[in-house]
Amino acid sequence: MDSLKLIIQKDDWKKEKHVPVIEIKGPTKKGEPIDVYLCVGKEIPHPNTTEHHIRWIKLFFQPDGEKFTIHLGTYMFEAHAESTEGPNKGSAKCEPYVYTRVILEKPGSLTALSYCNIHGLWENSLRVDFEN
Amino acid sequence: MDSLKLIIQKDDWKKEKHVPVIEIKGPTKKGEPIDVYLCVGKEIPHPNTTEHHIRWIKLFFQPDGEKFTIHLGTYMFEAHAESTEGPNKGSAKCEPYVYTRVILEKPGSLTALSYCNIHGLWENSLRVDFEN
Amino acid sequence: MDSLKLIIQKDDWKKEKHVPVIEIKGPTKKGEPIDVYLCVGKEIPHPNTTEHHIRWIKLFFQPDGEKFTIHLGTYMFEAHAESTEGPNKGSAKCEPYVYTRVILEKPGSLTALSYCNIHGLWENSLRVDFEN
Amino acid sequence: MDSLKLIIQKDDWKKEKHVPVIEIKGPTKKGEPIDVYLCVGKEIPHPNTTEHHIRWIKLFFQPDGEKFTIHLGTYMFEAHAESTEGPNKGSAKCEPYVYTRVILEKPGSLTALSYCNIHGLWENSLRVDFEN
Ligand SMILES: [Fe+3]
Ligand SMILES: [Fe+3]
Ligand SMILES: [Fe+3]
Ligand SMILES: [Fe+3]
Repeated sequence: MDSLKLIIQKDDWKKEKHVPVIEIKGPTKKGEPIDVYLCVGKEIPHPNTTEHHIRWIKLFFQPDGEKFTIHLGTYMFEAHAESTEGPNKGSAKCEPYVYTRVILEKPGSLTALSYCNIHGLWENSLRVDFEN
Repeated sequence: MDSLKLIIQKDDWKKEKHVPVIEIKGPTKKGEPIDVYLCVGKEIPHPNTTEHHIRWIKLFFQPDGEKFTIHLGTYMFEAHAESTEGPNKGSAKCEPYVYTRVILEKPGSLTALSYCNIHGLWENSLRVDFEN
Repeated sequence: MDSLKLIIQKDDWKKEKHVPVIEIKGPTKKGEPIDVYLCVGKEIPHPNTTEHHIRWIKLFFQPDGEKFTIHLGTYMFEAHAESTEGPNKGSAKCEPYVYTRVILEKPGSLTALSYCNIHGLWENSLRVDFEN
Repeated sequence: MDSLKLIIQKDDWKKEKHVPVIEIKGPTKKGEPIDVYLCVGKEIPHPNTTEHHIRWIKLFFQPDGEKFTIHLGTYMFEAHAESTEGPNKGSAKCEPYVYTRVILEKPGSLTALSYCNIHGLWENSLRVDFEN
């Protein structure tokens, strides 16, 4: 029992295409909306096929001095050209790319967790400090 | 059996704060990335509390001439200031706001479905035609 | 705008393999746990391959006399033998099958919504009345 | 960058109510359906209120000798008596309890990850070996 933990891989997103990128666009003020950009494959695009794609990115926040991690959001990329005509013949697919908006009351760290349907779990983190 | 369908509400998003807004930013070309903006409460903000909030938006696509609806994505807004200190004391919340990116091979209609944890399901649709 | 609604298909689950089955196992008492069984393909199994599978089932409840639909749960079936070795070579897959437990304070109707990645959205409903 | 990882808590589920329980019911044979039971609060029930509840359980599989973790499923418990009448007045809630069915081609370890909306992330694992 408990013999195994999840294998959550980490690496430099500039070299390894699976690592989720987290960027903050615009100001970071306490209690005001902060725009967070998440994507996989910013530098090196990841395949996007019926057989191999990024299925989701999840975003977590660890406020400084708190004991528990907060789950902010899940962003699921469900279409990858699946079709009754066969794989990769479908009319729609999603890019693993999302902007969202959060409101934070404390500084802390954002962590993104992403999932490739054949290469598993990957994470990345970004420190958030408030501007004066 | 089959006595009931889901109650999916529709209205004008300028008057009714629950209706999801769908907007396309930038060009809409066949087979090229299209930026889709989704939010709830664009004109009239929706409450964002532990007890009352927008939990998710889902995006679907109906390609012209096809028989089945395609599920593009789900965007979940999980934090609403829940806390061990009591409701609305938490360090983080999410705004029901997301940009994402899709690739379409046919014109058709995007449908957003959103869910308020106390006011149920709401939908809105947007026609997508390709530019020359 | 609003030119299209979601295409949510209905049929008899004994003839059409995509229709979600909803069954209640055991007693249905007000305010006490009720075991709900959900599956797709009970009579006629649905394919379960990397290219074609049931991705999720969602469960909703419409209490009698209330105006809004309640989202009870989402059950996602994420693995379909995807693999770095190629499609359908993977070590794990999920069957579109779930038991869960809900507590209801009023009679009403359960609605299950399921999604096949190439055949779209399907629904089914089941009336719930309390035993004496 | 990368200064923080997710805080995923572990403990004995008989003493700590947040720890997800994983049990296998019935036979475990290669390539045949295996019934997996997941719940939170088996020994010590967890609160189930609008303000404090288990939001989801996710199930992962690590096949022996493979490099990547496979995401099997996500089971979301969305209703917690939220209501227009105020918190905890609603007509429905979900118990953090699910049975599902998976097909495995190799022995390995199942890991469940659960989330309490105020007490964060918890995990547990169970070894799966095939019967002769
Ligand atoms: Fe990959
Ligand atoms: Fe509302
Ligand atoms: Fe199908
Ligand atoms: Fe808790």
